[in-house]
Amino acid sequence: MLPDRISSFISDHIEDFTRELVQFLAIPSVSTLSEHSDDVLSAARWVFDQLERCGFKGRIYPTERHPIVLARSPEVSGAPVLLIYGHYDVQPPEPLDEWHTPPFSPDIRDGFIYARGASDDKGQFLTYIKAVEAVLGAEGKLPINLIVLAEGEEEIGSPNLEKFLVDHRDELRADAVTISDGSQIAPGSPAITYGLRGLSYLQIDIRGPRFDVHSGVFGGIIHNPAQVLVDMLQKLKNPDGTVAIPGFYDDVLGLEDWERKEMVSTPADIDALMNYLGVSELTGEPGYSVTERSTARPTLDINGLWGGFSGEGAKTIIPARAGAKVSMRLVPNQVPERIDQLFMRFVKDLCPAGVSVEFKGIHHADPVLINRNTSRMLAAERAIESGFGKKPRFKREGGSIPVVNLFRKHLDQENILLLGWGSPDDGVHSPNERFCLDDFHRGIRSAAALFYEIAR
Amino acid sequence: MLPDRISSFISDHIEDFTRELVQFLAIPSVSTLSEHSDDVLSAARWVFDQLERCGFKGRIYPTERHPIVLARSPEVSGAPVLLIYGHYDVQPPEPLDEWHTPPFSPDIRDGFIYARGASDDKGQFLTYIKAVEAVLGAEGKLPINLIVLAEGEEEIGSPNLEKFLVDHRDELRADAVTISDGSQIAPGSPAITYGLRGLSYLQIDIRGPRFDVHSGVFGGIIHNPAQVLVDMLQKLKNPDGTVAIPGFYDDVLGLEDWERKEMVSTPADIDALMNYLGVSELTGEPGYSVTERSTARPTLDINGLWGGFSGEGAKTIIPARAGAKVSMRLVPNQVPERIDQLFMRFVKDLCPAGVSVEFKGIHHADPVLINRNTSRMLAAERAIESGFGKKPRFKREGGSIPVVNLFRKHLDQENILLLGWGSPDDGVHSPNERFCLDDFHRGIRSAAALFYEIAR
Repeated sequence: MLPDRISSFISDHIEDFTRELVQFLAIPSVSTLSEHSDDVLSAARWVFDQLERCGFKGRIYPTERHPIVLARSPEVSGAPVLLIYGHYDVQPPEPLDEWHTPPFSPDIRDGFIYARGASDDKGQFLTYIKAVEAVLGAEGKLPINLIVLAEGEEEIGSPNLEKFLVDHRDELRADAVTISDGSQIAPGSPAITYGLRGLSYLQIDIRGPRFDVHSGVFGGIIHNPAQVLVDMLQKLKNPDGTVAIPGFYDDVLGLEDWERKEMVSTPADIDALMNYLGVSELTGEPGYSVTERSTARPTLDINGLWGGFSGEGAKTIIPARAGAKVSMRLVPNQVPERIDQLFMRFVKDLCPAGVSVEFKGIHHADPVLINRNTSRMLAAERAIESGFGKKPRFKREGGSIPVVNLFRKHLDQENILLLGWGSPDDGVHSPNERFCLDDFHRGIRSAAALFYEIAR
Repeated sequence: MLPDRISSFISDHIEDFTRELVQFLAIPSVSTLSEHSDDVLSAARWVFDQLERCGFKGRIYPTERHPIVLARSPEVSGAPVLLIYGHYDVQPPEPLDEWHTPPFSPDIRDGFIYARGASDDKGQFLTYIKAVEAVLGAEGKLPINLIVLAEGEEEIGSPNLEKFLVDHRDELRADAVTISDGSQIAPGSPAITYGLRGLSYLQIDIRGPRFDVHSGVFGGIIHNPAQVLVDMLQKLKNPDGTVAIPGFYDDVLGLEDWERKEMVSTPADIDALMNYLGVSELTGEPGYSVTERSTARPTLDINGLWGGFSGEGAKTIIPARAGAKVSMRLVPNQVPERIDQLFMRFVKDLCPAGVSVEFKGIHHADPVLINRNTSRMLAAERAIESGFGKKPRFKREGGSIPVVNLFRKHLDQENILLLGWGSPDDGVHSPNERFCLDDFHRGIRSAAALFYEIAR
C-alpha cells in the first residue's frame, strides 16, 4: 500500500531522481582496479551526502581497501527496523570498444539508461534513497527505522564486510534486510528471489621452462604449459556439460516439485535468450530446463585464459607460463571450501612432472535458500504489487550475493528480501549495461511501499 | 685452409669487429611489429653500408613491408659464386621484465654478448661481412665471387622474399648458398645441418555470445568459447604426446640407421638441457631419443592462448571470444598445406553448434633434407675444421629456415650449406638471447676459410 501523496511525489520528481542517477553512474567506481580507488571513495561520499540530506546520521568507515557507508534514519519509536544493503562499486567496463556510448557517460535512449553499474547495483540501490526522499517530501516523516549499509567491494567479493558486520553487529540489528541487486523474471514480470547460487572462484597458474623457449628447438621434448593447462581444463567438464570433478555433485539438494513447475522454460523464453546472446543454440545439463540449469544447478566456467604470445603475427615459442581463472556456481548444500579442495586435488593430479601448478583462491560465496512463507516475505510481495501493479513470482537466481550469507551468519538474519528491480537482459558485467527507467520508477514506488508494509 | 695472414688479421681486429656487432644489435629491428618498421630499415642500411665499404655493389630493394639488401663483390673472373644469405630482423623481445639487461643495449659478460638477435641472426650473419673485410685487409682481394642477400622479414615468414627471388633469379645464380642461422651441437662441437623441420602456424578464433556475459546469470546454458577452445586444443594431442590429428603422420619419412646412431642423447646431454630449461623432466614421443624428438619427429605446440579476463582479481564472465596460436613442426615429407587442411578439418569437426570457429594461416615452411656427400658439403666441412679446430658433425635442426626451400624451388639450388655458429643454449626467441664471442671469432675464421675452400 503506497499513500497517494507519496505516489504523486515520486511521479512529480522522477526527472530529478533520474538526473541524480546519471551523476551517480558517472563515477567510475571500479573496485577491482587499484587506480580507481579514489573513484570508489567518491561514490561512497556521494551516497553519504544523499543520506545526510535525508537526515540520516552515520559515517563513512575506512577499511583496508574501499570504505563502507553506514547511516541511520531519525528514530521512530516502536517502529520496526529495516536494513537496506547496496553497493556502489562496479565491474570493470572492458572490453571498451564494444560499448556504444562510454561506460561512465550515462546515456538515456529508448527508455533505458546505459552505463556501467546502471542495473548492478547503483540504479537499483538508489531507489531506496529516492523512496526515503519521497516519503519525507510527501509525509514529513518515515513510518519505519531505516539503516543503510552500502559497500564498495561487492564486485571483488566483499573482503572487508565480514569483519565490519562483526564489529558493528549491534548497530545493524534489524527486523529484515532488503537487497535490490538482481532482476525480475522478465521485463514487467517482477519477482522475489528465494534462492541464489554460490561461487568458488580460483586461479590456476602453470609454470614450465624458466623462460619462453623456441618451439623449433625444444618442441617435442618438454611439456608445454599451455597444453598442460588445456588438458586440465578440458577434463573439468564431461562431454554432456556436467562437471567431471569427483564428488562435485555429492551435496547438491534436489529441486522440489513446486520449483520445477515454476522453472519451466517456454520456447519463447529460449528464443528471447538466444536472440539476446546472439547464439544459435543453448546447451547444458541433460534433464533440466534452461531456467533450472541457469539458477538451480551447479556449473563450471572458464572466466579467463592466457599464455604465450597473443599479439599480431607469429612468435614460435613454447610459453614458460599459462594460466586460467575458473569459477564454479554452487547450489544448496554445496560448500565452497569443500569444492575448492575437490577442484585443486583433481587438477593437481593432472599435472605432469616437469611443470608446476599453483592455485589462488579468489573468492567464495555460499549458495542460499530463503523461506518464502514469512510475514516479511508477504510484506515484500504486497509492496511489489503496489509498485509494479502486479504480484511478484518467486524465483531463484544464478548469480551470487555473498553478503546474504554474511547477514545470516553474523546478524542471525533470516528475513532477507531479495527484490530485484532489474531485468535479465540488462547486460550486467557486459558491455552496454542498462537499466529500464520505468523499472527505476517502479522500484522507488515499491521501496516506499515496503517501508509501510514492513511497518504495518 | 685459412691463409695465415688472414688468420692474424682476424685476431688483430676482433675487438673492432665486436664493437660493430654491438652497433648492429642495438638496432631494435623487430619485424612483426609495425611500429619498428623504421628500425628494420635502419638495420638494412647498416648492412648495406658495411658491404659498400667492402666494395660491394648493389642496392636496398623496398618490398611491401621490409626491404631486402642485395649486393655483389667485385668480379673475380673464373671463380665460383657463393651466395650468402642472412637476416637482420629479430623476434619481439617480450617478456621484457625477464631480461637481465635491456634487449637492445648489448651487454658483454663472461665471454658472451647478450642482446635480442645476438645469435639469431645478426651475430652469425655478420661473420661473413667481417670475413670479407679480413680477406680484403690481409690479401687485398677475394678468391671468390660473393653475393650477399639479406632480408628483414625472416621472423615473420619472409612474405616478400619469394617474389624477389623469382624477379632476381639471374642475379642470384650461384654455385652454392651458405646460411649461418643455426647452432652447433653443443658449445665447441661444430656441426653442419642437413635437415630442418618445416612449419605450419595457424590461429584459431572462437566466438560465442555477442559480448562477454555474466557467468552467474548464463553459466550452465551456453557454450563457453574458452571451454570450446580448450576442448579442441586438448584433443590435438594424445596422452603420450603424439599428435592426434588423423593422417598427420602419413607422409613422415622414417629415420635411417646412420642417423639414429648420430642422434643418441647421452644422460649428460639430457641433464644439460633440463638444467638450461629449468625443468625436472623432459617428455615426448615414445620410442625416440631426445635428439630425434626435437629435430627429426613432427610435433605440435600451443604458442599462445587467450580469452576473457586475465587482469587482477575476479571478473565473473563467460567470454565472448577465445583464441590460440598453434604451430606444428613438420619433417620430410610432410606438406604444410596438407597438414593445414587436416588440422582445420579436425578442429572444425569439434566445434559445437552455438559457437563459431575461424582459422587464420600465419605461416608455412617445408621440411628440408640435404645430401651430405656433395663436394660443396666437403668444402664446408674443411672450412669449419680450420675455423673451429675440429671436424663438424652432421645433424638435423628442429627449427625452420623457410628460405632454404625458396632457394631450392626458385634458384634450383641444392648446394645449401647450413653452418650454424650458435649454440643450442643461446636463448634464441627467449629473454637474454646471447652469442659466444669465441664462436663469433671462430665463425669469422670459418667463413673466410669457406671462401677459399669453395674457390679451390
